[in-house]
Amino acid sequence: MLVLGCTAKKQEEPSKTTQEEPLSIIFMIGDGMGIPQVSSAYYFGEGTPNFSRFTHIGLHKTSDKSSKITDSAAGATAFSTGQKTYKRAIGVSVDSIPQETILEQLQKEGYQTGLISLTSITHATPASFYAHVKDRDMHEEIAAQLVTSKVDFFAGGGKKFFNQREDGKDLFQYLVEENYHLDTLQLSNPVLGQSNAYVLAEDGIPSKIEGRGDFLKDATEMALDYFDQKGKPFFLMVEGSYIDWGGHAEDADMMVAEVLDFDKTLGAVLDYVKEHPNTLLVVTADHETGGVSIGKYYEMDESTGNKKEVADKVAVYFNSNQHSGELIPVFAEGKGAENFQGIYENNEIYHKFLQSLNQNKQ
Amino acid sequence: MLVLGCTAKKQEEPSKTTQEEPLSIIFMIGDGMGIPQVSSAYYFGEGTPNFSRFTHIGLHKTSDKSSKITDSAAGATAFSTGQKTYKRAIGVSVDSIPQETILEQLQKEGYQTGLISLTSITHATPASFYAHVKDRDMHEEIAAQLVTSKVDFFAGGGKKFFNQREDGKDLFQYLVEENYHLDTLQLSNPVLGQSNAYVLAEDGIPSKIEGRGDFLKDATEMALDYFDQKGKPFFLMVEGSYIDWGGHAEDADMMVAEVLDFDKTLGAVLDYVKEHPNTLLVVTADHETGGVSIGKYYEMDESTGNKKEVADKVAVYFNSNQHSGELIPVFAEGKGAENFQGIYENNEIYHKFLQSLNQNKQ
Repeated sequence: MLVLGCTAKKQEEPSKTTQEEPLSIIFMIGDGMGIPQVSSAYYFGEGTPNFSRFTHIGLHKTSDKSSKITDSAAGATAFSTGQKTYKRAIGVSVDSIPQETILEQLQKEGYQTGLISLTSITHATPASFYAHVKDRDMHEEIAAQLVTSKVDFFAGGGKKFFNQREDGKDLFQYLVEENYHLDTLQLSNPVLGQSNAYVLAEDGIPSKIEGRGDFLKDATEMALDYFDQKGKPFFLMVEGSYIDWGGHAEDADMMVAEVLDFDKTLGAVLDYVKEHPNTLLVVTADHETGGVSIGKYYEMDESTGNKKEVADKVAVYFNSNQHSGELIPVFAEGKGAENFQGIYENNEIYHKFLQSLNQNKQ
Repeated sequence: MLVLGCTAKKQEEPSKTTQEEPLSIIFMIGDGMGIPQVSSAYYFGEGTPNFSRFTHIGLHKTSDKSSKITDSAAGATAFSTGQKTYKRAIGVSVDSIPQETILEQLQKEGYQTGLISLTSITHATPASFYAHVKDRDMHEEIAAQLVTSKVDFFAGGGKKFFNQREDGKDLFQYLVEENYHLDTLQLSNPVLGQSNAYVLAEDGIPSKIEGRGDFLKDATEMALDYFDQKGKPFFLMVEGSYIDWGGHAEDADMMVAEVLDFDKTLGAVLDYVKEHPNTLLVVTADHETGGVSIGKYYEMDESTGNKKEVADKVAVYFNSNQHSGELIPVFAEGKGAENFQGIYENNEIYHKFLQSLNQNKQ
């Protein structure tokens, strides 16, 4: 269409302030959370799960360089470094060479960083964002690397890797020397002028069915509030760790309770993203655990002695107590969410983060 | 930004002809094809599966009005009528009242219509688009309804429901009287001035591992070419029927071969959509079958007598020989594809078709 003539035209353009503000990233990992686990929220939760609030959905393929069926170390390292590596690798390449993680890269750009996990904060998933060791079981070395990582906020378990160590050191003392406000008892209010470390259990924090309460949601909201008050962009990783453990234990109650707890936290984060337009939320898993299926529920029919389907119920079935290789869902919301659509390899998540950060700078 | 002054500005606008051309729809249903089945194409296929060509992905929830775990009849009726109904229902509401299907609605608007299935063309999935009966096993009644359905192109099996009937009628004769070019031997060239019916097996067409060849792809390309030559918009449903049967049989070879055959057909259809911008392709399933998981592959270690993981292989596991209740992927491409993102109930697929058709009219 050819428009001729004299016009005074007001064109919409985002305000410069908004456009130049760096993008903050919240990365939520439901360890072991495949489509069956997400589906369980639709059968066992109350109301519509928060997963339904997403528009942008992708799928990623999880195989690593050593195995078709990956683990949490290689899975999280693919996310954090953009490279597929071998099973058990933490922040290192297939040749065991340390690779800079997205958390470390963003620290250099002045980002605040945070890590929240239900298990030990030295466990494979959180560790892959700040540590570089050849094997995930090197918890004491990983804890030592955390102390000097300059992560601004972390919360999880794993006391024993800090204060009951083979080298006899008390890393909690070192944390305090590194200007951390440290709490080993509870999620006390973060101190704005300091970094904040919450190490709240000898090993893992209790599971939901053991009475954990709202730790995951509370710690996440506390971190977001802390970052907001400090006023710089941030990268926050939140792990729902025990969905995986429910799968390994073939414990449907545990698995479902952890998925619902993750979904509750997700609700709070989605609210935050809605109120903070310069934020990108990406939710995914490293792999599925348990080969889970939501199947028919059967009862014994006493009159016939045969099993009989109960049509208004479902049951959770496990194919194994191991990880599986199905495509894993990716849910994205906020600025750059459209980059996470489609089907791709797990390490592409890292590159899609960079793509979103770069788009935001332009 | 305020733009002042005299400008002659050329604005991009789609040509009127393209904009007003009605939207054609290709709806591909992989019966029983959940995320594990799609995933299997990534482990057992050659090269990157065509599923990776999609950007727009959604997930739907499959439960029907009578059961949490649905069947192909209620599943396809939700797609075709926009209403959830009871298991075994074909094109009828929960009160067994016939509901107009999207195929019938589009026929009234002058659309050409087509149905392709590997199983009997009277089977639940294709039947739900043209028939209205209270139970999916009423094959002879369904066949009778097909004869007068005015579907322009159909291909599948099910001869016995046409010519070996309890009422003694030969429905093939009726089809010829309804101006069908009928072939019961092969996919002969369609006749442009007639409707075209291919009923090529007594019951189902052979499965892929029984030597079917490229029937699904060939029939689909033939239908698309036929519609193109007639030059009117179309609605075509293509069913990859035996992914479900592989699950029921707990036969991994059958399941995987059918997924790969479906993916091959998908490649041809995606090529078509790329060349025909006024087309919408939606690919989904009614439900998952088999509670399938892609898990670790084990071999017996002869030195220890224990089973040992083989890291570069995977195995297909079945939790049951039944349908399951996991969220089902939806892949969309072409005009209106963005409407199919997010997580929603299965019957929303119908409403999303209408939404896309209406958007195209505006």
